[in-house]
Amino acid sequence: MENQRGFKTAGKSIRCKAAVCRNPGKPLVIEEIEVEPPHAWEIRIKILCTSLCHSDITFWEISTGPYAVSPRIFGHEAVGVVESVGEHVEEVEEGDMVVPVFHPNCRECRDCKSQKGNECSIFGKQVTTKMPRDATSRFKGMDGEDLHHFFHVSSFSEYTVVDVVNVVKISPDIPVDKACLLSCGVSTGIGAAWKVADIEEGSTVAIFGLGAVGLAVAEGARLRGASKIIGVDLNEEKFEIGKKFGVTDFINPTGCGEKKVSEVIKEITDGGADYCFECIGLSSLMEDAFHCTRQGWGKTVILGVEKHATPLSIDTYFLLRGRTVAGSLFGGLKPKSDIPMLAHKYLNKELNLDGFITHQVSFQDINKAFDLLLQGTCIRCIIWMD
Amino acid sequence: MENQRGFKTAGKSIRCKAAVCRNPGKPLVIEEIEVEPPHAWEIRIKILCTSLCHSDITFWEISTGPYAVSPRIFGHEAVGVVESVGEHVEEVEEGDMVVPVFHPNCRECRDCKSQKGNECSIFGKQVTTKMPRDATSRFKGMDGEDLHHFFHVSSFSEYTVVDVVNVVKISPDIPVDKACLLSCGVSTGIGAAWKVADIEEGSTVAIFGLGAVGLAVAEGARLRGASKIIGVDLNEEKFEIGKKFGVTDFINPTGCGEKKVSEVIKEITDGGADYCFECIGLSSLMEDAFHCTRQGWGKTVILGVEKHATPLSIDTYFLLRGRTVAGSLFGGLKPKSDIPMLAHKYLNKELNLDGFITHQVSFQDINKAFDLLLQGTCIRCIIWMD
Repeated sequence: MENQRGFKTAGKSIRCKAAVCRNPGKPLVIEEIEVEPPHAWEIRIKILCTSLCHSDITFWEISTGPYAVSPRIFGHEAVGVVESVGEHVEEVEEGDMVVPVFHPNCRECRDCKSQKGNECSIFGKQVTTKMPRDATSRFKGMDGEDLHHFFHVSSFSEYTVVDVVNVVKISPDIPVDKACLLSCGVSTGIGAAWKVADIEEGSTVAIFGLGAVGLAVAEGARLRGASKIIGVDLNEEKFEIGKKFGVTDFINPTGCGEKKVSEVIKEITDGGADYCFECIGLSSLMEDAFHCTRQGWGKTVILGVEKHATPLSIDTYFLLRGRTVAGSLFGGLKPKSDIPMLAHKYLNKELNLDGFITHQVSFQDINKAFDLLLQGTCIRCIIWMD
Repeated sequence: MENQRGFKTAGKSIRCKAAVCRNPGKPLVIEEIEVEPPHAWEIRIKILCTSLCHSDITFWEISTGPYAVSPRIFGHEAVGVVESVGEHVEEVEEGDMVVPVFHPNCRECRDCKSQKGNECSIFGKQVTTKMPRDATSRFKGMDGEDLHHFFHVSSFSEYTVVDVVNVVKISPDIPVDKACLLSCGVSTGIGAAWKVADIEEGSTVAIFGLGAVGLAVAEGARLRGASKIIGVDLNEEKFEIGKKFGVTDFINPTGCGEKKVSEVIKEITDGGADYCFECIGLSSLMEDAFHCTRQGWGKTVILGVEKHATPLSIDTYFLLRGRTVAGSLFGGLKPKSDIPMLAHKYLNKELNLDGFITHQVSFQDINKAFDLLLQGTCIRCIIWMD
């Protein structure tokens, strides 16, 4: 069976290379694996390029508990071409350029139909390490053992299978490396600025953590005309990078002397920032961010996934003075409609995506991407399939 | 000196009766006091009626720490007539009917001019037990000692002095007992439903605590067309009262058996309420309320002042699923513009205020109002000046 766009593999298993995590925290191993054809409502994608996000590292490092499953194929920021589709898939066809997305969007549930949030009532219940509909794997190692999926994407493989609710068709006009960025971190930051915070012109903004998500918040704030965009990071080099995305002020918490970061931010903003974003995932920083917001209408947006499951402690006296705390995944964006919107803004030269790509490696060198992100100067490393 | 409306007291101290708290938690003592004339920017008001709010009781009970000051004149829900005004006061004149309000509204600061919040940058910094501009008292006991003010209102006195930022002129068409209700609790609840939550038609709402504030949230939700209004209270009698304000379902937490309140609410609302309101002031209930909101866009509104200063603990995993927590004082309302708006809605027969008044006593019997509110069946007891 040969499909229209020339893939001769539809309906068959594909042997290809994947970077498999066999031991938590250890270098990935490039192996030959087998990728099954897509079942009903599924799509098999030939990955063009992928990138490494901090969430990959967070889960890669987990060595105990229910989240420590292996062997597993990580990766959830990517772009690719549809190789074949399973039964009932009408939204995309072979040859389409698509961005796989961890955040589901079925477009039929109450949540997906609502304009208010971006959760999916049907597919958003939990994140499994298998396919969402039948809880089985599409990956087999060479010994025939099942390999676990990650975040319903698993893009560190030449081919992957994802559910149709985790795929967004995208214009082939956008360069593939820029499209890849829209798959997770960058969209999350921009969405948080636009949808969750809904930043107005002239607002003051403070961002805790200038990784890809934090810089994307800055980019979103810049495009909304924020008057001050304050970056908070331990790495001074992030300030130079941040300036490209509109960061106007930089605070290194270790350089504040006797003062708390919140005091410095209150001075810069004349009483507190209108919007604070936590992009790290530490409840102590979330608390700091909350105390940096102004009385009256200050809003704290939580984007970081708390690494230790420590709850956020809020002094309700400060909350009662008109403050708000909001959280979201994927920046409150609905993938199917908002990723194409962001791609459009890039093509219109409104959105700066180029600045996020600081490094590029070939798939063979995927472990270098881990080193680069852990070193802290890398924002996004594009990993090119061979 | 006699003013236009017949008050012969302008410019002089007035001897009158006040209910003075001389010992925390002990019955108030009706005493003769002296009320000084208003200074610049101040207004002396002849109180017509006042009512007792839970916040009076909370502070009346405090016997240690910086908030335990006495002798003090409590009371912050009231309505009265302007007896005289100090220099620079142009907003009201002798004879005007006014509602004093604890929440300041100067109308000139950045916050008061903004449409976003309801804090006042200039006068909202702190609550003192003296007049806000010069930190002195206008009350003297018969031995010449200063009596402390409360919440910048102190309405348990035949005459009181308040700053112009704490006074709202109101139409004399509204019956005085209904006007009195708009001074704090009822406005807070309606405002929270309309301004902070901004409840839409068809929404599901859960309210923890069916006192005046909680019932006013219900009234606000009813007027917005909420499809379900769930009241949570330990007192079963509150359900019958609640029905008058649109409460459709009632949960007594002690009657849920093995189930948590959040599980019951999730069943009733098919996944969680769109809006939850905490109107008690216990961080454990705030946490429960948070867990009753639906994934995607559930919003928890905190109205209760935490009695033990215990922080609110939030599991950020649930926050990241699109939830929001917001706090406000006075329901996010701007007193000077929103109290007249509520009075107008009452006069238009849109707003149910009558149902809040369950008891009435004369000023001599003010301590009965404390007993009634503490017993739990009283919503609001109007205390009539003789």
